[in-house]
Amino acid sequence: MLTVYSEEHKRRNAKTELHGGELVASFECPSRIDFILARIEEVNLGVVEAPQSFGLDPVLRVHQRGFVDFLQNCWRDWLAEGYGGVALPSAWPARGMRQDRVPDDIRGRLGYFAFAADTSIEEGTWQAVRASADVALSAQKHVLKGARAAFALCRPPGHHAASDLYGGYCFLNNAAIAAQAFRDEGAKRVAVLDVDFHHGNGTQEIFYGRDDVLFVSLHGDPGSAFPHFLGHADETGKGAGEGFNVNLPLPPGTSFDEWAIALEEALRRISDFSPDVLVVSLGVDTFKDDPISLFRLESDDFKTYGARLALLGLPTLFVMEGGYAVEEIGINTVNVLTGFDNAL
Amino acid sequence: MLTVYSEEHKRRNAKTELHGGELVASFECPSRIDFILARIEEVNLGVVEAPQSFGLDPVLRVHQRGFVDFLQNCWRDWLAEGYGGVALPSAWPARGMRQDRVPDDIRGRLGYFAFAADTSIEEGTWQAVRASADVALSAQKHVLKGARAAFALCRPPGHHAASDLYGGYCFLNNAAIAAQAFRDEGAKRVAVLDVDFHHGNGTQEIFYGRDDVLFVSLHGDPGSAFPHFLGHADETGKGAGEGFNVNLPLPPGTSFDEWAIALEEALRRISDFSPDVLVVSLGVDTFKDDPISLFRLESDDFKTYGARLALLGLPTLFVMEGGYAVEEIGINTVNVLTGFDNAL
Repeated sequence: MLTVYSEEHKRRNAKTELHGGELVASFECPSRIDFILARIEEVNLGVVEAPQSFGLDPVLRVHQRGFVDFLQNCWRDWLAEGYGGVALPSAWPARGMRQDRVPDDIRGRLGYFAFAADTSIEEGTWQAVRASADVALSAQKHVLKGARAAFALCRPPGHHAASDLYGGYCFLNNAAIAAQAFRDEGAKRVAVLDVDFHHGNGTQEIFYGRDDVLFVSLHGDPGSAFPHFLGHADETGKGAGEGFNVNLPLPPGTSFDEWAIALEEALRRISDFSPDVLVVSLGVDTFKDDPISLFRLESDDFKTYGARLALLGLPTLFVMEGGYAVEEIGINTVNVLTGFDNAL
Repeated sequence: MLTVYSEEHKRRNAKTELHGGELVASFECPSRIDFILARIEEVNLGVVEAPQSFGLDPVLRVHQRGFVDFLQNCWRDWLAEGYGGVALPSAWPARGMRQDRVPDDIRGRLGYFAFAADTSIEEGTWQAVRASADVALSAQKHVLKGARAAFALCRPPGHHAASDLYGGYCFLNNAAIAAQAFRDEGAKRVAVLDVDFHHGNGTQEIFYGRDDVLFVSLHGDPGSAFPHFLGHADETGKGAGEGFNVNLPLPPGTSFDEWAIALEEALRRISDFSPDVLVVSLGVDTFKDDPISLFRLESDDFKTYGARLALLGLPTLFVMEGGYAVEEIGINTVNVLTGFDNAL
């Protein structure tokens, strides 16, 4: 399987994140990608190539321009207002507050466009974010041109980013950008399967009113897991999109046996949809030792479900999302990909 | 003028606040009150007495029970889930996310009930918060019984706290609780004048649909000042409350001359309303050297406007809100009160 990868991800090296009431070293760190890349080479998964640049047009197909402008200029504006540290939101438009006006000052704009205070914006963040979208689009082109599968080794991840919201380490929604590109380049129906421990609230929001992109997610029940405020089973789409959003929340402590039953339901929904192509939001934070997640998958389980995904028989784009057990992230991620390849 | 004060405020000693992308010493600190109390004694303002306890019934007249339960139990629940540090929200229900379900876990509940990440909940916070409401209610009783004025030396402050939201150093809305108590104990119309630099978004929200409590606020334009997402001039009330909410936002750098013109407009609106009693949300962060505010009042200006307030001829309850230029907070606060007293 071909992998697309960009060195630019290293420019996203968050100094800190707000976690458990403290500013701690960010769980979403550059070494995550180093471990995955090393494992790809170790098992000879296939060619690793650099992305092409696609500009902002495909990004703006799923994100609002004002939001993208904000991401692009945030760090400059933060410095211009004399702040040090890292750019973090500290107040936001909660229930009953105005959501129809974007404040002028950078503190207000941070709160307007964020849904979480865990995710800093710093020097280099935008450059890494743009490159990550290009990684997704470059891998997408390989699948578009006929590859059975490709792996977009994206960083930062994307599935929490909505059309005009960032958070959960995500800024632009790489999987959604790729799914939309498939649609714009000829696919009639695209399915997005999100296997990250955390609900892909951003992807859901982007496609919630549409019947041409099916979103299916297995994830920790938001009653007890981030992102807390989206991902319930009764969120099934709206308008034309009614019935094209499938959430399968699972309780803390879910084992692979239980997870695999939910996966079968997910795959059944995808098969019923009869998509032209599958995008997998590949988070491996379902692993038992993940420091910020609550499921109990073992490393071999990732190989098992990778093989199962191959049986769908669909052209498949894997897009890297979360996974914070850094030492094992390479093995777990590549297990999915080799499991898939070996089942072909 | 009589002052009500409780030692319990010292139990609110926030270790830290999120400000400018860093965790810094909280601007809202116990010594604020020490300086005010010292100045009260220095100028012999009048008797200082401890509050009575009024329980939660008057609090629940303006705050939702689920919110009050959350405040009461938050620190216990935070510890029970194994967190250290201080309890801070890190994710919240933003645009398009669910606001109809309160998450089970404490991280989700923090985000649900907060509108800002600047305000920690820690050991002792609830005890200080309850005492602060009792301080407001105790001073309110003096005015109810015929005192021309009384000063509730509240800490923590309250005007940012809405019926079910906390933030901006505020948890329970002391001024709103007192205003409601006046109504419940015989006043037909109550006016709340908020002179804190920051918009009193919580007080506005609590009374927004009502015509029996007029809310008038002079404050930094939310386009460039906290709380960012409420306080615009076009927020005039809703339903029966239409016309009973008056926001007078002023630009950064506003001097006393400009501020005093807006005050005249505020007082005209209050006179037109013909209230039985006036509650003043007294923040002195309009002072030129306030570290987190943007107006340019001098210490003598506080005496001038205190005198002007007395000319309204209304029974008046002063409720302490913000002010973070700690060395001068005693002089500025007490200048308002002596200005008022000397004009009688």
